[in-house]
Amino acid sequence: MTVNYTDDVASRRGFGSFWKLMLKWRGSVYKMVWHDMLVFIFLYYFISLIYRFALPDDSRKTFESFVLHCARFRNLIPVSFVLGFFVSLVVNRWWGMYQSIPWPDTAAILVATHIPGQSAEAREARSNILRYINLTIALTFAKISPVVKAKYPTLNSFVMAGYLTEREMKILESLEDRVNVHKVWVPVLWACKALDHARRHELTTEGGQRVITAEFLAIRSKCGGLMGWHQYNIPLVYIQVVTVAVYSFFFFSLLGEQFLDPARGYANHLIDLYVPFFTLLQLFFYIGWIKVAEALLNPFGEDDNDFEFVPLLQRHIEMTRLLSEPSPSELPEYIQDDD
Amino acid sequence: MTVNYTDDVASRRGFGSFWKLMLKWRGSVYKMVWHDMLVFIFLYYFISLIYRFALPDDSRKTFESFVLHCARFRNLIPVSFVLGFFVSLVVNRWWGMYQSIPWPDTAAILVATHIPGQSAEAREARSNILRYINLTIALTFAKISPVVKAKYPTLNSFVMAGYLTEREMKILESLEDRVNVHKVWVPVLWACKALDHARRHELTTEGGQRVITAEFLAIRSKCGGLMGWHQYNIPLVYIQVVTVAVYSFFFFSLLGEQFLDPARGYANHLIDLYVPFFTLLQLFFYIGWIKVAEALLNPFGEDDNDFEFVPLLQRHIEMTRLLSEPSPSELPEYIQDDD
Amino acid sequence: MTVNYTDDVASRRGFGSFWKLMLKWRGSVYKMVWHDMLVFIFLYYFISLIYRFALPDDSRKTFESFVLHCARFRNLIPVSFVLGFFVSLVVNRWWGMYQSIPWPDTAAILVATHIPGQSAEAREARSNILRYINLTIALTFAKISPVVKAKYPTLNSFVMAGYLTEREMKILESLEDRVNVHKVWVPVLWACKALDHARRHELTTEGGQRVITAEFLAIRSKCGGLMGWHQYNIPLVYIQVVTVAVYSFFFFSLLGEQFLDPARGYANHLIDLYVPFFTLLQLFFYIGWIKVAEALLNPFGEDDNDFEFVPLLQRHIEMTRLLSEPSPSELPEYIQDDD
Amino acid sequence: MTVNYTDDVASRRGFGSFWKLMLKWRGSVYKMVWHDMLVFIFLYYFISLIYRFALPDDSRKTFESFVLHCARFRNLIPVSFVLGFFVSLVVNRWWGMYQSIPWPDTAAILVATHIPGQSAEAREARSNILRYINLTIALTFAKISPVVKAKYPTLNSFVMAGYLTEREMKILESLEDRVNVHKVWVPVLWACKALDHARRHELTTEGGQRVITAEFLAIRSKCGGLMGWHQYNIPLVYIQVVTVAVYSFFFFSLLGEQFLDPARGYANHLIDLYVPFFTLLQLFFYIGWIKVAEALLNPFGEDDNDFEFVPLLQRHIEMTRLLSEPSPSELPEYIQDDD
Amino acid sequence: MTVNYTDDVASRRGFGSFWKLMLKWRGSVYKMVWHDMLVFIFLYYFISLIYRFALPDDSRKTFESFVLHCARFRNLIPVSFVLGFFVSLVVNRWWGMYQSIPWPDTAAILVATHIPGQSAEAREARSNILRYINLTIALTFAKISPVVKAKYPTLNSFVMAGYLTEREMKILESLEDRVNVHKVWVPVLWACKALDHARRHELTTEGGQRVITAEFLAIRSKCGGLMGWHQYNIPLVYIQVVTVAVYSFFFFSLLGEQFLDPARGYANHLIDLYVPFFTLLQLFFYIGWIKVAEALLNPFGEDDNDFEFVPLLQRHIEMTRLLSEPSPSELPEYIQDDD
Repeated sequence: MTVNYTDDVASRRGFGSFWKLMLKWRGSVYKMVWHDMLVFIFLYYFISLIYRFALPDDSRKTFESFVLHCARFRNLIPVSFVLGFFVSLVVNRWWGMYQSIPWPDTAAILVATHIPGQSAEAREARSNILRYINLTIALTFAKISPVVKAKYPTLNSFVMAGYLTEREMKILESLEDRVNVHKVWVPVLWACKALDHARRHELTTEGGQRVITAEFLAIRSKCGGLMGWHQYNIPLVYIQVVTVAVYSFFFFSLLGEQFLDPARGYANHLIDLYVPFFTLLQLFFYIGWIKVAEALLNPFGEDDNDFEFVPLLQRHIEMTRLLSEPSPSELPEYIQDDD
Repeated sequence: MTVNYTDDVASRRGFGSFWKLMLKWRGSVYKMVWHDMLVFIFLYYFISLIYRFALPDDSRKTFESFVLHCARFRNLIPVSFVLGFFVSLVVNRWWGMYQSIPWPDTAAILVATHIPGQSAEAREARSNILRYINLTIALTFAKISPVVKAKYPTLNSFVMAGYLTEREMKILESLEDRVNVHKVWVPVLWACKALDHARRHELTTEGGQRVITAEFLAIRSKCGGLMGWHQYNIPLVYIQVVTVAVYSFFFFSLLGEQFLDPARGYANHLIDLYVPFFTLLQLFFYIGWIKVAEALLNPFGEDDNDFEFVPLLQRHIEMTRLLSEPSPSELPEYIQDDD
Repeated sequence: MTVNYTDDVASRRGFGSFWKLMLKWRGSVYKMVWHDMLVFIFLYYFISLIYRFALPDDSRKTFESFVLHCARFRNLIPVSFVLGFFVSLVVNRWWGMYQSIPWPDTAAILVATHIPGQSAEAREARSNILRYINLTIALTFAKISPVVKAKYPTLNSFVMAGYLTEREMKILESLEDRVNVHKVWVPVLWACKALDHARRHELTTEGGQRVITAEFLAIRSKCGGLMGWHQYNIPLVYIQVVTVAVYSFFFFSLLGEQFLDPARGYANHLIDLYVPFFTLLQLFFYIGWIKVAEALLNPFGEDDNDFEFVPLLQRHIEMTRLLSEPSPSELPEYIQDDD
Repeated sequence: MTVNYTDDVASRRGFGSFWKLMLKWRGSVYKMVWHDMLVFIFLYYFISLIYRFALPDDSRKTFESFVLHCARFRNLIPVSFVLGFFVSLVVNRWWGMYQSIPWPDTAAILVATHIPGQSAEAREARSNILRYINLTIALTFAKISPVVKAKYPTLNSFVMAGYLTEREMKILESLEDRVNVHKVWVPVLWACKALDHARRHELTTEGGQRVITAEFLAIRSKCGGLMGWHQYNIPLVYIQVVTVAVYSFFFFSLLGEQFLDPARGYANHLIDLYVPFFTLLQLFFYIGWIKVAEALLNPFGEDDNDFEFVPLLQRHIEMTRLLSEPSPSELPEYIQDDD
Repeated sequence: MTVNYTDDVASRRGFGSFWKLMLKWRGSVYKMVWHDMLVFIFLYYFISLIYRFALPDDSRKTFESFVLHCARFRNLIPVSFVLGFFVSLVVNRWWGMYQSIPWPDTAAILVATHIPGQSAEAREARSNILRYINLTIALTFAKISPVVKAKYPTLNSFVMAGYLTEREMKILESLEDRVNVHKVWVPVLWACKALDHARRHELTTEGGQRVITAEFLAIRSKCGGLMGWHQYNIPLVYIQVVTVAVYSFFFFSLLGEQFLDPARGYANHLIDLYVPFFTLLQLFFYIGWIKVAEALLNPFGEDDNDFEFVPLLQRHIEMTRLLSEPSPSELPEYIQDDD
């Protein structure tokens, strides 16, 4: 589910509004990094205890050299640079995906405007046509989101939900046997054909048909766009490179950031704090940053930051009904007498 | 309220135009950072005084080691890098939001052009249709901006302001009971229906209806865009990561940037200036930078840099009236005799 | 005035083409930074002379510690990073502004094509309509550019320049008294009304009216865009942060980059060159970089890099006349007999 | 073939979803870097063994100085910076290319809607017109992708695949002799002419022709776009600069990262680990990063991350048939009786 | 001429595909940097020889201090950062320019479709109209590209090339005397007028005229865009700042990277290699990077990476002829009988 905090930061006062966001848990960095931090802390103290109590004195010397070696090289890994560019890319793609989500609202208003009237024929045309549009959107979502797929696993479940009639399901199934490519556009074709049908039965004009068809095809094109974002994600190799960089940084921190005996007089090892505050902060910070990418890379699941496709489908059905079936009594007086 | 300084920097001379902007207070960095700086200064001197006067000699040694430790690690936090990418993202989004703000001006000109005439019927059509458009914009603003919400808390307040008739409010209320989704598009539907009504009463042509409808739906689409920017803001986790990075940097600066007794001969501690000029500058600079993000992240409130939606609504009403109701006597002679 | 060097770098040979640009003065970095550099040099030598000749020996020691302190911390200010992101933002906005500038050329061609004929009526329609469009552009420019405002301070000056008739000015003035919002769109409304008038008098077709109106509204939308860029510039706080960062860097350089007596044996102070070549280069470089931003932030003035709105207005008038009033004798034979 | 891992990262739990991607081989960084790593390791140990066992003692001194020299300067090469900007550019272009890929789906739906009916004439019109569109797409792909070119090396192979009739091939061949420019747009011209033919035979309306022609030209424009991406790739000089930077970094690492005898007491050479963990990690990381660019720079081949044009062509044929030839029995009852 | 290497990197194997690009000369970094490198090497050894053989012993000491001073400060110049942002900007603009290049292909297909028939009148209309479009493109190219200007220095040369008739040239010349603004749009006006003429002579329909006019104006708008990119290039000051940064870096490298006598025991001067490998590599790398910018900043000349406008014009003429004048015998049988 989406985490909406925007209204908390609408206006700032005094120390600013970001403080208010620090204590949220859902969708927070705390929720995302605590597993990693726990493992890190466990391993860190495991090594630390061995160094402090278990190592014989001559091995300690070697261990210390090794720690100093790790400490120096660890900082050659350009973690912040890589993360900066990578997260920037992921955030841009995430927003691009959001903007590719199709909305049936405009289509519903157009259908209500250009196929007017309260005759049974007009009402049937409106409801069928918009049902096909919603069906295409639902089929698209089911292709890209495991959550929607789980809710609508079969064509039959779409029938249950009122997206399809039994007969239409049969058609889709028979096509499934005959053709290899996906059938998501078939309902768009139905909608366009039904619109043409409506025009030939004089339920709409040629101009009306033109603009509605254009809108339907725009929705289809957005659905296609969504599938493209889903199929051609950031190349695997890039993700692997970034993940290896970040986690190897912390792997070497396990050693390189051990506190050494101050008595040995190593540079930068003047004090033994027992708790590696800075390294934990870095861990929190860098791991948190990569989790931003992880959460946004595929926003089609059920993470705290993912788009909520299941409620969206429900909303689409209600919204198309609201906009396409205004009962005459629910129109302003001025236009009420039209239908 | 927006801070408009643009004309101050139109042309530069001599030392350049940015100097002129340094002394502004409204919307300035000074206004934004002084709380944080005050707290920092208080804590800094609190610690400093303890070190200078209260600590026994052996504890001072430990304190000094701790300070050196903090000083070294503090600089490993890549604050400028993170802020660079983050602020860049926030500024882009802020401008994207600005460009999603809907304007009714084009719609008003189109309505004035394509529904001409001074008959009572034509005048009523024009004013009703544009009222619905302004209503949709106002309802959208009320959804995203707490300031507009405060001004128009109920549907009744829209009736007061002349956006709605009593009867139309009743319709919206009855829909509210029946349907879950938001009702912001309903007035757009009314506008499109009213336009169709006008065409059927020959107040406009089919071509006129087509272009006006397209413009109305473009406005609806922009309103939808605004709601999208509002609902899917930058993921919370990203903001938390950045805030933690910046403030922990200053938390460790409280210790790491203490002046140590020069007599101790620590590297980089040759002088005791009492006032940590550089750290205060860094504080000013980094905190100022993150405040840029804070101010722009949600520009729907009442910060100095926020979009001013309440005056904007007033302006829309006046502008649509200006553009859609030209009295014949206020048209150039050449076209005056038309209406 | 714009500095056009593009043709100098069309083709490169030998040492490349950028060398040719190094010696230009207009719009150059030299012209922009010499004030700042002069002040810096003066202050630098003022301090230097005090250190070398006026300070008593014990104060010199303190001064030297202070210099070393400044030298170290100066480099912690991430000037290049901040400038990189900031200038990047400013350059993008500058280009966005350029692309928002409206051009009446397409409108003129459309008017010439769709309102053909040499009748007095057609000629009057063409010239009035395009005059209104040019007027809207001129009013927009006067709102955003102090230079245009200076040239056309009152409505009367627009009458002088032939943009307005006396009577039209009266209309605008009477609207000014009555309505608060700006009147820049009113001439667009007139143009659309006049076009409708022309269609009703069969000077153009319905199709012609549609495309011309669409173009007019596109011009209006670009004018609105320009005003938006003007009103919502980069938040003041961001500019202040950047300016403070860059100039405080040089303030501390005044001290931190002083040459210390090599005899004292301070690290990195092996030689006394008297002239701080590197610091001057840095000054030249960073101040030059921030001046890029300063020059582009508001390109509506009269800096060397600003858009030249006054000649542009003159050009628009000539161009619309050239394109909309082809005398039949100046058309190719093939189409000459049409009008 | 594309590597699709998106569904693996739909929802994250516990340690996050990126771990699941670490073990994939196809399209992975491991598959891409192992050649380079093997060569590096071989050369590294070759030099190491010479240093350890073959060098006379006085040469070892010189060798060690050389190693220290390399170690210092190696780090002055800004590899991560260059790669950050370069990969960012390549990824943006890769996505731009993806979005330029033409899809015939919308065209097919439009043809099915606006050229309705089951008459032989209508069926022939539909299938011919869409065949031409698919042909243009196939010819474009053959121009940019060596893989498609290998599958369809001659015009005859397009005849085999059903894209062309024998006679049409003859026409293209005769044009080939006469005209120098490519012939990829000729089938689009045929499609537009055939559409005009269909309108004149009343198989479609003028409005239908208009929207279908617009869609065909949009497809042509996308094909032209693809050819542009292909022809004007990132300038060669940029790629050479980046490649030289990255590989010279590792060339100098071969020397600079050799372990020196700890007994010599060189700074940062406290320990001899035999295996240069960090350098291998850097190699893995930087070489992996440049391979991201290599894989995406020209996505028209047959790399793991390339677009799969051959299956795409097959898909297009099936999809256009599915969408343009709905058998009446496969339409919902509601519109079944139309054709 | 463009350097097309794309097919070399279509599919990668083994060590990757970038290696294949390393040995190219045309458009390569080698071709671009060798002048600069030669000068650098000459100066470097000139200084080196003076230091080694000519300097008296006491001056050597001063020289060495100076070298150490330069070496330290040289690295404070943020060359890679500045170049990263600058090249990024230049590459974006270069691609923006490419995408602004107008193509007459779509216009030709539209003309062939909507002005059908083999009558002398139709043929004349088609050829005249497209000639005007090609003329506008040619005039635009002549304005921005010195290469095209050199090929078509006068209006007469356009007559020679078949773009203009004698009479049309006279018209343009007479306009030249009378009007100050450029005349590039005049042929677009002619094309639109001629199209209107064709419609009135029933060679095309109103719908046909509308879409063709829209395409012509889109081409005009792209031509205007090209002129904008040409006139408002990156501000001179930015280029100067970057050039000064890069070349002063190398100027100081001449001194700072001299090998000092290892016997003196300076830090980081342990070895005298005689050849400054790293500095040459840096030179190669940074100069190469700035040359990327130099080559792309104005792609209208005749550099290896520039757009080839002269062949493009030839291609446009052939392509418009191919697409607009299909001889009936060169159409598929199916539509052959139409014309």
